[in-house]
Amino acid sequence: MSTLTVPAQVPSAAEDCEQLRKAFSGWGTNEELIISILAHRNAAQRKSIRQTYAETYKEDLLKVLDKELTNDFERVVKLWTLDPAERDAFLANEATKKWTSSNQVLVEIACARSPQELLLARQAYHARFKKSLEEDVAHHTTGDFRKLLVPLVSSYRYDGDEANMTLAKTEAKILHENILKKAYSHEDLIRILATRSKAQINATLNRYKNEFGQDINKDLKADPKDEFLAILRATVKCLTCPEKYFGKVLRLAINKRGTDEDGLTRVVVTRAEVDMQVIKEVFYKRNTVPLDHAIAKDTRGDYEKMLLALTGHRDA
Amino acid sequence: MSTLTVPAQVPSAAEDCEQLRKAFSGWGTNEELIISILAHRNAAQRKSIRQTYAETYKEDLLKVLDKELTNDFERVVKLWTLDPAERDAFLANEATKKWTSSNQVLVEIACARSPQELLLARQAYHARFKKSLEEDVAHHTTGDFRKLLVPLVSSYRYDGDEANMTLAKTEAKILHENILKKAYSHEDLIRILATRSKAQINATLNRYKNEFGQDINKDLKADPKDEFLAILRATVKCLTCPEKYFGKVLRLAINKRGTDEDGLTRVVVTRAEVDMQVIKEVFYKRNTVPLDHAIAKDTRGDYEKMLLALTGHRDA
Repeated sequence: MSTLTVPAQVPSAAEDCEQLRKAFSGWGTNEELIISILAHRNAAQRKSIRQTYAETYKEDLLKVLDKELTNDFERVVKLWTLDPAERDAFLANEATKKWTSSNQVLVEIACARSPQELLLARQAYHARFKKSLEEDVAHHTTGDFRKLLVPLVSSYRYDGDEANMTLAKTEAKILHENILKKAYSHEDLIRILATRSKAQINATLNRYKNEFGQDINKDLKADPKDEFLAILRATVKCLTCPEKYFGKVLRLAINKRGTDEDGLTRVVVTRAEVDMQVIKEVFYKRNTVPLDHAIAKDTRGDYEKMLLALTGHRDA
Repeated sequence: MSTLTVPAQVPSAAEDCEQLRKAFSGWGTNEELIISILAHRNAAQRKSIRQTYAETYKEDLLKVLDKELTNDFERVVKLWTLDPAERDAFLANEATKKWTSSNQVLVEIACARSPQELLLARQAYHARFKKSLEEDVAHHTTGDFRKLLVPLVSSYRYDGDEANMTLAKTEAKILHENILKKAYSHEDLIRILATRSKAQINATLNRYKNEFGQDINKDLKADPKDEFLAILRATVKCLTCPEKYFGKVLRLAINKRGTDEDGLTRVVVTRAEVDMQVIKEVFYKRNTVPLDHAIAKDTRGDYEKMLLALTGHRDA
């Protein structure tokens, strides 16, 4: 469930472009006007605005935004304006270039998208970077992280609902045995997480819980400081309950001293059109503070307004 | 360059279906009529024939062929009639189910197709088997073979012509160092072969040859009986010179005592519309016997006729 609000009568792309052009012209920039347009158009409408803008003014809207806006507001508007697949390609590229073992962006893109969406992101990666996503991930990561991340981003999972219960039983056992032995990067454990369909993994992890008494993610918390365990837990959550995963990313981003704007922006722009409604419920349940209050408290100015608009705040 | 010959005036799919229906009706089957139609239609035309046949006679042409034909002739006609992506999915599934370490079909599908064709095969695999290709490959293979084959079938390589010469130099060195140490399944060696674009791999292997004095495949022949080395050589050949690879598969299939019909059929149906013309030239150069003579000598009946028709034999 999306938190995006689109007006009942949407102006044509040409009208939107004219207004945006106005917002950029003259002394200063009219940020409110930009928000009122872009934050209330869906992906297809934004794409059409970008195309029309390029045809009409012979300029790439993204480049204009780059010139006109600054800081966190610039980043949220630009990421939002990108097509979802291009945005994932951009975020994934950024993540490989400045990759650290605590960076979970690649896991999000590999596991919290549908198989088809991941594929579109890989195609967008080719088009933009003249390379494959998997070669950059393989090139920039090492050790166990590479063993996990390369198959995750290369996967093209079956997307059906079928689950094989016999397989679930066998593979729950394989997972458990490896976790008991602390063989967290064992090839079978990675194979299961990286190749099985989400429905199958769900069945396997349910079986795991029934048979071995607790959530696999509890068992993957043996050492809370181990970053490989953290990325395995993120993998499991992105595959089985992305809304909880993203709720937690928001919580940590907001509660952090100084706010983690990158995390906050990323979750808002990538989930607003997907499941932000559910993420807000999860967030409220866990923090007893509505997400918009938390955002309003921690951010300011146009950046705050844009985030509130995307998360469906009434007045935005 | 294809060896497929399509008549100047192609009958409509409806007319072709009517003729096929005739070929199946009455006492016995008219194999010559079937060959004269199916062996002279391209992939799009065959697809349209299958659709029209299903609409007109409420029967799947593939199932009818299954009922009417037998043995090697049945297999070649059925494989040929399948859409290329479905055919690859079918062959890949067969290869995983009866996988042995000498089976190179998965390498062919992963490396001798374009990145887009491999992707279409993976999509066809989902549709037909309700699973992903990579999960079946991972499930049915082990050890070094799994380490190589899973990334190969999961790859979605960049398909551009660009090659980075600095990277070629670095990675040629990485390949050489690992080969010197006999670390043939080293993750870097596999990473390079499984993720880099074909253009990049070509540049890297040229660099390898210049720098280290001989073809990488010569260096990968340290132990001619080692099947993992054989599959690495197949990978390199399918990526860089598929026509030589397939020429050799044909040579071995035909020269074998008793003929390897599976190999012969597979190469003919998968390459007839792609590069069979070049494969024939390679074959002649290496064996001093034209491919059609070799096929005619080793096969007979309708199977022979179908193979000759697909390889562009004049009278077929």
